[in-house]
Amino acid sequence: MDGTLRDDEVHVGGDARQRYYDSRGYGRPLGGNEVAFSRVEAAHLLLRGDLDSVDGNDFRAFLQESTGNGFASRFLVYADLRERGFYLSPDREGWVSDARTDSDFVVYPRGSGPWDDEVLYRIRVASERETVPVSELGDTVLAIVDEESEITYFETDRVDVRGTTDHDVPTDLSGSLIADRVLLWNPPDELHGKSFYGQQMGGRDATGILQLSLVEAAHLVAEGNLSVDGGYEKIVERGEEVEGDRFDRRLLVYRTLRDRGVVPKTGFKFGADFRTYADVESVENLGHSEFLIRVLRDGHEFSPRDLALDVRLAHGVRKRMVFALVTDNERIDTWLSVTRLTP
Amino acid sequence: MDGTLRDDEVHVGGDARQRYYDSRGYGRPLGGNEVAFSRVEAAHLLLRGDLDSVDGNDFRAFLQESTGNGFASRFLVYADLRERGFYLSPDREGWVSDARTDSDFVVYPRGSGPWDDEVLYRIRVASERETVPVSELGDTVLAIVDEESEITYFETDRVDVRGTTDHDVPTDLSGSLIADRVLLWNPPDELHGKSFYGQQMGGRDATGILQLSLVEAAHLVAEGNLSVDGGYEKIVERGEEVEGDRFDRRLLVYRTLRDRGVVPKTGFKFGADFRTYADVESVENLGHSEFLIRVLRDGHEFSPRDLALDVRLAHGVRKRMVFALVTDNERIDTWLSVTRLTP
Repeated sequence: MDGTLRDDEVHVGGDARQRYYDSRGYGRPLGGNEVAFSRVEAAHLLLRGDLDSVDGNDFRAFLQESTGNGFASRFLVYADLRERGFYLSPDREGWVSDARTDSDFVVYPRGSGPWDDEVLYRIRVASERETVPVSELGDTVLAIVDEESEITYFETDRVDVRGTTDHDVPTDLSGSLIADRVLLWNPPDELHGKSFYGQQMGGRDATGILQLSLVEAAHLVAEGNLSVDGGYEKIVERGEEVEGDRFDRRLLVYRTLRDRGVVPKTGFKFGADFRTYADVESVENLGHSEFLIRVLRDGHEFSPRDLALDVRLAHGVRKRMVFALVTDNERIDTWLSVTRLTP
Repeated sequence: MDGTLRDDEVHVGGDARQRYYDSRGYGRPLGGNEVAFSRVEAAHLLLRGDLDSVDGNDFRAFLQESTGNGFASRFLVYADLRERGFYLSPDREGWVSDARTDSDFVVYPRGSGPWDDEVLYRIRVASERETVPVSELGDTVLAIVDEESEITYFETDRVDVRGTTDHDVPTDLSGSLIADRVLLWNPPDELHGKSFYGQQMGGRDATGILQLSLVEAAHLVAEGNLSVDGGYEKIVERGEEVEGDRFDRRLLVYRTLRDRGVVPKTGFKFGADFRTYADVESVENLGHSEFLIRVLRDGHEFSPRDLALDVRLAHGVRKRMVFALVTDNERIDTWLSVTRLTP
């Protein structure tokens, strides 16, 4: 069979409807037996030898003239999902009824196709070298084509991060701001032992001194539990000196998590802002931390390689990577979870 | 015992030499029985109760007035290494004979002290929030104090990355530049199967088409094995369009590794530039890749958190993290290996 390019679609007549659409989910029916293919669908049919030519072009010639807007990446993802046994359509008017602009393909569950209503994934395609705005993720699967044309899939979801940690904290604590930490000279044991604030100085050789990070100290001062010379303002000022407004975003996320019964501790060893514990009874029986949290502005654009690094690391330590997206007016807009997906 | 502050050192008399220096490696002997301590040493002695005061100040008061130049971080690292059973000295004239400016402490092997000549580590201390110039690493252990005052140690070394992969590559290949890859339509099997260039299009469903990344293609064109319309210049131009001069640095590192018998493949899934194989006989028997390589300018400054992320991920996948440092005039200055260290 041969196709004809019209308005960037490839039209095929004959028994095309039965042959391509009904039996294998390619294209969209035009009426009668005619079917229209997107360029990506047509290229795949040409590669498989299921279509002979488009206006006389074979696969190679067709590919070379299809240079628009990420075509090569979209073609590779389409072919990969077909090879994995899925039917899929361009997420475009005419192919699907509720086409979306934040997605390139609609993937149907195995055994289903464009004639069904069910959708398994909406896929957004990007090359390793493009950046991807975080604001456009949350309901899509991100398919990244790397420089060697391999594909990595990331599932993105909006999640609710909540826990059940709830201990009374004494209200008469006092501490000293020393460089970028606050030292408590003889705090009650439960402040660290139950509520998991701070770290003991001296480790095994107990010194009685508890070291709080600046976000921990600022939170406890704001909650009325701790007094420090210079107060909340002084701690925040110190934080901003060393981290700029990144400190304010991190403090907002820290405080929100504590308010929700989640204990955030530093994620430094994992290259993240925080690791979190949803249910801390005592530090002796701490359990596994569930999330790694990275704090970002909501206008952030992911470099796919950085995203791959974060998600891979989190997976390797059996945690889930969550990005806390903070707006300009200091609100947490979204908790965006990103995990590796094998379709 | 009580000390006196003189020129930013703490002097102690009495039986100080025998008590502090000879038996526990603190300070530097001044002549007679007098010993001088650095502020960090004095703070540690105050914390342990082995010194009563400095000019009437106890540990808390002494710490609060010792605000200079990363004092708190250096103190925490000093205390941590002491707790681990090491003797150590400030890397400073008077304490050690060959003091260095890129290091804060000299750590002696267990059982040794400042009276011996042996050095186990030279330690450079930084807070999580400082950046660290890559050019100053390679002979030191980097001790990072995170916001919760925990310490992570990174051993840094200059390494030689070499391998033994050596296959003849055909000299009559030709390919087509399509977006940011080069397609070879019917290349000989050994190009991928032995030399591990490119990736087969279609995976299991062999199509005969091999996809080369831009660095692979540029290298093969430069070596005289491959011809592509527009030649080497056109491929580099395409690479620079999508990556800027980062592409040139990556190409330099790619070509250098190939010249040294090492096969670099994309490190995308690990968030790195390349993963490397030192000895490829065939793709079927590939073995484990040894290094993750990130390409940086030699003027780069590490954010400690990014460094922690890279090193942790590499460790988790049983590889070693290596940074290839490229100079402005396109030379590879150093292959800097960074690994986690437990002293």
